[in-house]
This record gives sequence, structure tokens and C-alpha cells, in this order.
Amino acid sequence: MNNIEHKNYNDKSYALGATGSAIRELFEFGKKRKQEIGADNVFDYSLGNPSIPCPDIVNETLINLIKNTDATLLHGYTSGPGDMNVRNSIASYLNKTYGCSEKGSLIYMTCGAAASLTVTFNALIASDSDEVIVFAPFFPEYRVFIEKANGIVKVVKSREEDLKIDFEKFEGTINENTKAVLINSPNNPSGVVYTEEDIKNLSAILYKKEKEYNHPIFLISDEPYRELVYNMDKVPFVTNYYDDAIVCYSFSKSISLPGERIGYILVSNKCNDAINVYKAICGSGRSLGFVCAPALFQYMIPSILGYTSNIDEYKKNKDYLYNELKKIGYDAIYPDGAFYMFVKALEDSASNFSERAKKHELLIVPSDSFGFTGYVRLSYCVSFDMIKRSIPAFKALFDEYKNK
Amino acid sequence: MNNIEHKNYNDKSYALGATGSAIRELFEFGKKRKQEIGADNVFDYSLGNPSIPCPDIVNETLINLIKNTDATLLHGYTSGPGDMNVRNSIASYLNKTYGCSEKGSLIYMTCGAAASLTVTFNALIASDSDEVIVFAPFFPEYRVFIEKANGIVKVVKSREEDLKIDFEKFEGTINENTKAVLINSPNNPSGVVYTEEDIKNLSAILYKKEKEYNHPIFLISDEPYRELVYNMDKVPFVTNYYDDAIVCYSFSKSISLPGERIGYILVSNKCNDAINVYKAICGSGRSLGFVCAPALFQYMIPSILGYTSNIDEYKKNKDYLYNELKKIGYDAIYPDGAFYMFVKALEDSASNFSERAKKHELLIVPSDSFGFTGYVRLSYCVSFDMIKRSIPAFKALFDEYKNK
Repeated sequence: MNNIEHKNYNDKSYALGATGSAIRELFEFGKKRKQEIGADNVFDYSLGNPSIPCPDIVNETLINLIKNTDATLLHGYTSGPGDMNVRNSIASYLNKTYGCSEKGSLIYMTCGAAASLTVTFNALIASDSDEVIVFAPFFPEYRVFIEKANGIVKVVKSREEDLKIDFEKFEGTINENTKAVLINSPNNPSGVVYTEEDIKNLSAILYKKEKEYNHPIFLISDEPYRELVYNMDKVPFVTNYYDDAIVCYSFSKSISLPGERIGYILVSNKCNDAINVYKAICGSGRSLGFVCAPALFQYMIPSILGYTSNIDEYKKNKDYLYNELKKIGYDAIYPDGAFYMFVKALEDSASNFSERAKKHELLIVPSDSFGFTGYVRLSYCVSFDMIKRSIPAFKALFDEYKNK
Repeated sequence: MNNIEHKNYNDKSYALGATGSAIRELFEFGKKRKQEIGADNVFDYSLGNPSIPCPDIVNETLINLIKNTDATLLHGYTSGPGDMNVRNSIASYLNKTYGCSEKGSLIYMTCGAAASLTVTFNALIASDSDEVIVFAPFFPEYRVFIEKANGIVKVVKSREEDLKIDFEKFEGTINENTKAVLINSPNNPSGVVYTEEDIKNLSAILYKKEKEYNHPIFLISDEPYRELVYNMDKVPFVTNYYDDAIVCYSFSKSISLPGERIGYILVSNKCNDAINVYKAICGSGRSLGFVCAPALFQYMIPSILGYTSNIDEYKKNKDYLYNELKKIGYDAIYPDGAFYMFVKALEDSASNFSERAKKHELLIVPSDSFGFTGYVRLSYCVSFDMIKRSIPAFKALFDEYKNK
């Protein structure tokens, strides 16, 4: 006899579908509000949707492929892990750019960053005691993806002063169940970028702990913002510092193609048991329903590697916004990358602060959604004009607190 | 203390990645063999990769969209369930074509048929006693998808004579744990198409059992071959016959876009608790890493609804192949749809038969992979010329058995 109460659908899936994310809710509120009072009167800093168009070469390449490729080939299945020429061209590009020695045969093409992560987690997590360490503040979907793959999320809070890794806390959190450590630099939501020294320190701890527990601890590097850095020539590439590294990439952000869902997973050539880890990734993708990454966009990749959208515009936005907020009196973490800024809320509760900001038509995401208290995230991938027009609202909000 | 042996990666994911499918293996063998003896000398009936190009309107629409749409909009995120205009246009098209009354608000755009299925299974399966009934022969990935979603696969063997549903067996397999029944008409691997009467009989049993167990039993209809029918004007559309229906569609096959990964899930407007089932689908997609379906291909959909590739070519292939095989002396199930034919093996073991066929350069998939014994699947989405050239090989294979 079956004594389990029948459920018509999966509770967890329902809850995820019914609530949506805090970010999306704010965005939807903004859409409604814009209809009510006009788009120009709402200062929407809610979404990480690139505001700068992709470089012309993207659309030129797409049209060229459509016009000059046999349609059954162009739109046909690629192999599950992706077209081999495309994968080889990515490996060559990485090796040339970062001086690593990666292989196309260990690259798996995906439908974007989220897919890169879910495929990786479902490939690695092997028992329900497996833990994945994330550093707060972190992208809230990380928890959704890790828990769906039956993993346990262990949060290590970053240092309050600069949102870099608190290495002491980090080391204390690693145990024999630590399957992987997830980093995201340049960071969403803070814009913080790890330096070479940061990655070296992180790697030293991981190597020590791998030895102690006698099994690999994977470093998963989520890098959709890799090229969006303003303070250095390029970010340190993790496979040059740590062997058991898996890079999750997406072409969404730096080349402004978030809707097209194209990215990849790279298993480092030096990773322990790399070929078998790669096979687990292939099998994981298969079981989640990713037959292959979109073909037309795969074939586009070799022509656009090394290109980005004109990121000087984000830099201009960032510098202007940061300086104006500082002038008013706000405290913010200076962002070195991505297109996010972490600004200190003017009261303990970031949620309350975000609510009060709404009354000034400012849509800013409370940091609680990112596992961190007391801040708001501003996505400055918006028009420069909107930023300029929003400054008086930030001023009014600040004065409201000051005159309380 | 942790007494579970540490595993570096997930066993099940690894096994799925290491083995691949029997179909893919045969295809890879064919690729190698073609290099050895020339492509014209291998008769490759292994893969369901459409051989007829998409209609011109597909590429025209893509180019038009690329040239005339703001790039940040065109390539930007759509909402998670897909662009609302696209979803409404699909609902209108279905309502006009099949006389149903479905809603765009209950359509969820996906990355193709496999994603439609994995998202649906992960939305519905709520406990590890939940069962999904499939009819053999069936597409082998069904098992992969259902088991990954923690469901139990219950196989009901189709009637030997025509591969239609054995209703007595079917009814006997339903129990209080039956969460859903999965059908696939036109069918891969057999090409069999269910008639209106078949769907009515199926629905009557499901309604009776819903009453008996006092909970919904979902009918999931996997329809990538919906428009590929040769014996009727159009297939009976399941939501017209059964309320608790969920349609999983893909634009891969009938309009020849398998690599682009674009499809949808439709929750019938009449489905029990439809809005909440739909929310569970949205949450499931989110947790599996499907942020949105590829944007450019979503925007293309409204312009191509109702178009198919020139399916007369498949019909010509089918009739010629079927008649020639019958002339030789083979026994085959006459296919009414899709681009597959189920041919009786000339010995008990379909695998042995497929191996012996290989010696005649015939690549045909043994039915064991589809949960059915004694047949082989021929994918006739190939050039007519290849079919013509392959007939002597089929004859030689037949004679080899006859003269044994």
C-alpha cells in the first residue's frame, strides 16, 4: 500500500516557478511602473541585460553563414558536445590569449552560463553529502542549480571591506565532503575582480586540502563577465593556477547575446581524470535535455572570438555613477569589472532601503537576494542618459535619510 | 563521520557520457566507414537528421530580423517562458488549425523536444514512486529523461501486428502511482500514427483511471513529427480529446531545424490546475538551467507557423523503400508518419541482424535500443539516390539468410 500523499506536481519546481527571483520581480514591477508614469521617469537598475549592442561582426557573420551554408548542415544537429572545429577554435583562442594549453576535446558547448553550471553540477555531485562552497554575495540561482543537482550549498561570507575572499573562513569551511568551490570573477552582484594573488592564495589552500582529504576539490569558475574588466589587461585565467579547474563560460554578457544561449564548459587539460570528468559532463548534459548548443550560434563563434561590445560605455557609466554617488555621500565598493555596483544601504535592512528607493522611482536590488546584508546592487548596463537623470533621485533618497 | 566512499564525479552522468546511445554509435561507425570506402558506398539509415532543407522563409525571416531589429532587443533575454507575442501566435495557430482553445499564457518556449520533455518530467514527478508509462518501441532517451527526474519507467509493449496500443495491457499497468502516460505519434522508431479512435480509446481509459485513483493522470504527447503524416490531413490533437494533456513540441523535424533547439511545451487550457502545473514547468526549466529559448529563433516562429519542409520527398522515399523491400521479401510495418520504417529482422536477434547488415554497408538500428525485439529501424530521411543504390545490398542480405 502506498501511504505517500499523491502530489500533482513537484513542490520544488512549483515554488521556483511561482515565486521567480527578487530581481525579476523588481524588473516586472518596473515594466508596470513605466507604463504608468512613462519609461523616462523610472530609473531601472534591476537587470543585468547588456545595453550595448553586439559588435557588427556578429550579425555580419550570422548573415554570411545563413546565405552561404547548406541549410541542412547549418541548422542540423552538431555532435552533442558541439562542433569540433568550433571547440578547437575556442581552445586555440584561450591558449593564445592566456598562455594555457587547453584542448578542444575537453570543451563542451552549452546553452549559456546557466546551462554550463547545471551541467557541471549534475556531472560532479555524486552523493547528497557533497558540498559546493560559494562566496557571498553570490548570484542567487547558484543555490537553485546546486540544490537541484542534490548538492549542499556552503556559504563563505566575503570580507566586508572589499568583498574579497576571507581565506581563514574559507579554509575552515572545507571538509571531506567538499566537492567543489565556485567562484565568479568579475562578480555579479558586486563587480569585484580577483587578482592573480587572490587566485594563487585560493589555489594554495585548495591544493593543501586536496592532499589532506586525498580527493580532488574542483574549482568551478563562472566567467560570463571575463572580458568586462576595467582595472587590468585581462583576468588571471584559473587553469594557469589550479589543475582541477572547470571553466563555465557564456557569450551573453561581454558580446551582448544573452538571449541566444551560447556558452561552453572547459575541463582543464591538467584536471585529475580529465577525460572521465568530461564524459560525466557529456552524460549530464544529455540527461538534462541539452541535445546540442544552438547550431547557427556555434558556427558563428570562431569569427567573433576576441571581440566584445564597446565596453568603454560601461566604463563611462561606472565612473560617472560611482563619482556622483560618492559626491552625494553614498558608500560603494569600487567595481573593477562586470556591470554591477554594490552600494551600502542607508539603513540596516537592504530590503527596506530598496522599498524606499522605489518611491523615488529607483529600482535597485537588495543584497539579501545575494546572501549578503546591508547593500543594494545597481546594474549600470543602462543608458548614460538614464544614469544622469537618476542622480537627483539618489540625492533625494539620501537627504530623506539624512533629515530623518 | 562520513562512511560514504568519495566519488570524483556522478556515476550515472559518467555512464551516460561514456556509452552514448546505440544510434549515435552506429552513426559514428558510419562516419569512419565512409572515410575508408567513400561516402557513396555506405548506406546510412542510422540517424533521424532531416535531409530536406528548411523552407526558404526560415532563412529569409532570420535575415530580415537580423537586419531590421535593434540588436540589444533581438539578442537580449526574453522572459523565461518566452516572448509573449511568440507564444500568443503559436496558440492562435494551434486554435485555428486544430479547433482547440489554447492560450499563449500556458505555452513555455524550450530548447527543443528533449528540453520540452526534461522540463515537463521535472515539473511533474514529485516522489520516487511516481511512474510514467511509455509504449514500446520508444525513443531510448525517454528512459534517461524520466529516470534523471527520479521517475520510474513502466513499459507497455505495443501490439506486435501494427504497433498500436495494447489497451488491455495498458489499463492493467496503470495504478495509483501513475503520474503520466507518454505517447509519441507519429512515432520514432516505427512511423506509426495514432488515429482519432486510438486517442479516444486511450482517453477513455485515462478518464476512468483518474476517477478510480482520484488524481490527474497526465497525457504527455511528444510531437516533433506532428506534421509528418502521409495518410491523413492532420493528426488528432490530443487536447481536443483529453483534458489533462501536455504537448511537447519541437521545430526540429518537420521544418528541418534540429540543431537550433527550438520548441515548446503547451499545458492544455482544460488541464486540472493548469496554471499551477504551468508554474511548476517554469520552475523546472529554471532549475535545469534553461534561462530562455534562443531569442532569434523564437522571434522567427510567428513567420513560419504552418510551413514545413517539402515532405513529399520523404513520402517518395518511404513508398519506394517500402515497396522495394516488400518485393525482396522483407516484412515491414507500413509507416504512416515521421521518417522511420520498422522492418522485421531476419533472425530473432535484431542486434545480430544489424551486425550482419553492416557487412553489406547497411547501417540500420536494432530495435532492442527501443525496448522491442526482432526489428530494425530505417531512417529514410536520406537522399533518394542513396536508397536506390542500397537496394542491392538489402537483396544480398536477404539472400544470405535465405540460402543459409
